[in-house]
Amino acid sequence: MTGPTDSAESTGSTNVASNPSSNASPRTPAENGELALLCEVAGTPKPGNVDRAREYPDLRFEHFLAGAVGARRGLAMAAAGESVGESFECAVRGMATQRGGNTQFGAVLLLTPLVRAAAADENSRDGVSRIVADTTVADAVCFYRAFEHVDVAVADPPNGWDALDVRRGADAADAIRERELSLADMMATSAERDGVAREWTSGFERSFALADRLAVLDGPLPERASRAYLEALAAEPDSFVSITHDADTAREVTERADRVLSDHEDGDAFATELIEREINPGTTADITAAGLFVALERGIEV
Amino acid sequence: MTGPTDSAESTGSTNVASNPSSNASPRTPAENGELALLCEVAGTPKPGNVDRAREYPDLRFEHFLAGAVGARRGLAMAAAGESVGESFECAVRGMATQRGGNTQFGAVLLLTPLVRAAAADENSRDGVSRIVADTTVADAVCFYRAFEHVDVAVADPPNGWDALDVRRGADAADAIRERELSLADMMATSAERDGVAREWTSGFERSFALADRLAVLDGPLPERASRAYLEALAAEPDSFVSITHDADTAREVTERADRVLSDHEDGDAFATELIEREINPGTTADITAAGLFVALERGIEV
Repeated sequence: MTGPTDSAESTGSTNVASNPSSNASPRTPAENGELALLCEVAGTPKPGNVDRAREYPDLRFEHFLAGAVGARRGLAMAAAGESVGESFECAVRGMATQRGGNTQFGAVLLLTPLVRAAAADENSRDGVSRIVADTTVADAVCFYRAFEHVDVAVADPPNGWDALDVRRGADAADAIRERELSLADMMATSAERDGVAREWTSGFERSFALADRLAVLDGPLPERASRAYLEALAAEPDSFVSITHDADTAREVTERADRVLSDHEDGDAFATELIEREINPGTTADITAAGLFVALERGIEV
Repeated sequence: MTGPTDSAESTGSTNVASNPSSNASPRTPAENGELALLCEVAGTPKPGNVDRAREYPDLRFEHFLAGAVGARRGLAMAAAGESVGESFECAVRGMATQRGGNTQFGAVLLLTPLVRAAAADENSRDGVSRIVADTTVADAVCFYRAFEHVDVAVADPPNGWDALDVRRGADAADAIRERELSLADMMATSAERDGVAREWTSGFERSFALADRLAVLDGPLPERASRAYLEALAAEPDSFVSITHDADTAREVTERADRVLSDHEDGDAFATELIEREINPGTTADITAAGLFVALERGIEV
């Protein structure tokens, strides 16, 4: 055999479904992590994001399928207690085994500590906060390395932080070590401008709130995900839109999402328009995937 | 921890993507098996089968997502060299962790020996035929047990084979052992009426032919899958339609598929009609998933 191997993946899987005493999800945390990625992209409409009814010419639905399949390797590492940084880098490397480029980088960044916490029976804001607090300088170095596997649009670093610009990839490693910054420290520097980083510093406030909404809404899970996404989009300007366009555009999207929720505007038409304008509220999609994971771990049925 | 565990899954995953010398698929055989299941259901239109644009009220797209995620456990077992029977039963048990019931039972029955062969660098008709020939009575017992995890529509057994009716589940185990039937023997008894069993006895002829077509067709992989499915449907009456309806209906579907291919009928309208009439050419979808796997292992890009 010259290719990658599945051998170790199977050993534990044998035991997976033979635990009738468990009241938890019938899936493992890594399986739920992958399924959260898949249910996020399956939910439609999700204005501005690829879903099963809308895609970009070069970023298509199947890229997300392959990306989610590939990301599970790293999520399984996190579930096994490997470091958040190494698990995340592995997940991103697996996610990048398709030609669409960045599919769900931010979602995987949220899922990695969530999966690790859930695997330790700590599917809670406190539980994931402890995982975040325990991250190290080595985790930060891995995080930077992950950017070498895929192109990700990011904000400019704060003044004085140029040496730590994630776009420098592994070259920034020395600067990270010199300043002794953990991955949690890194996220704190970005929290003001980046909604994914803000989840890391806030105890995943919006992810858990979205999971609560999923439990309350009616209908099939992807429909609930679509609705919860719209609500989250209407509640707060999307930071990925702010980064890739500007604050005014992000505000417009938020106001329009609110109009869709109040039936003053058609959701499908809005979704098509945002794809045409290439306005992608990716942060809100990331938080939707994280909320789906928390809900799946709590036992929401598919 | 009371729930299932991902721990062993991760160990090997660490090495998965760190093999730059491999020219093969960037994914493991189990990952490709799961991705084949996902790309099959993503391909649209696939008249009569659930796809990303059409679903039944109680058998929806997300059931297929969760089913594919769950099936990977068993596919990873097969890749690790575990018995075909135990791997298949594990995959079906994982597939059944959703409320839609049977999503891709037949596809998983094709993928299990294909994944095992591919993991041994034998992604060929000869390679999978050797795996089939090596199946045992114990594999046949596991196969029967798999029917306890999910309801599957099957043909009546041949005369004199009532004791071996798969619908008897594990109760048929004694009868299997008494007659010393391997899983390959079991498939041979069904090959005349069941197109999935016929793949087992024919060296997966149609699966590999479909993989050849996928390589030749143009466009994104799910579009190729949709086209290859239609071609396969037009080439041979679907045995699942024969079992769940009758031979006349299966013949009608084949003729209509041919009309769609020659542009004398609209594929989307035909797809919607078949869903409304609950006519499900499931065997052809199973072979499409198997062909997708073979093509992915050969390195077709996503």
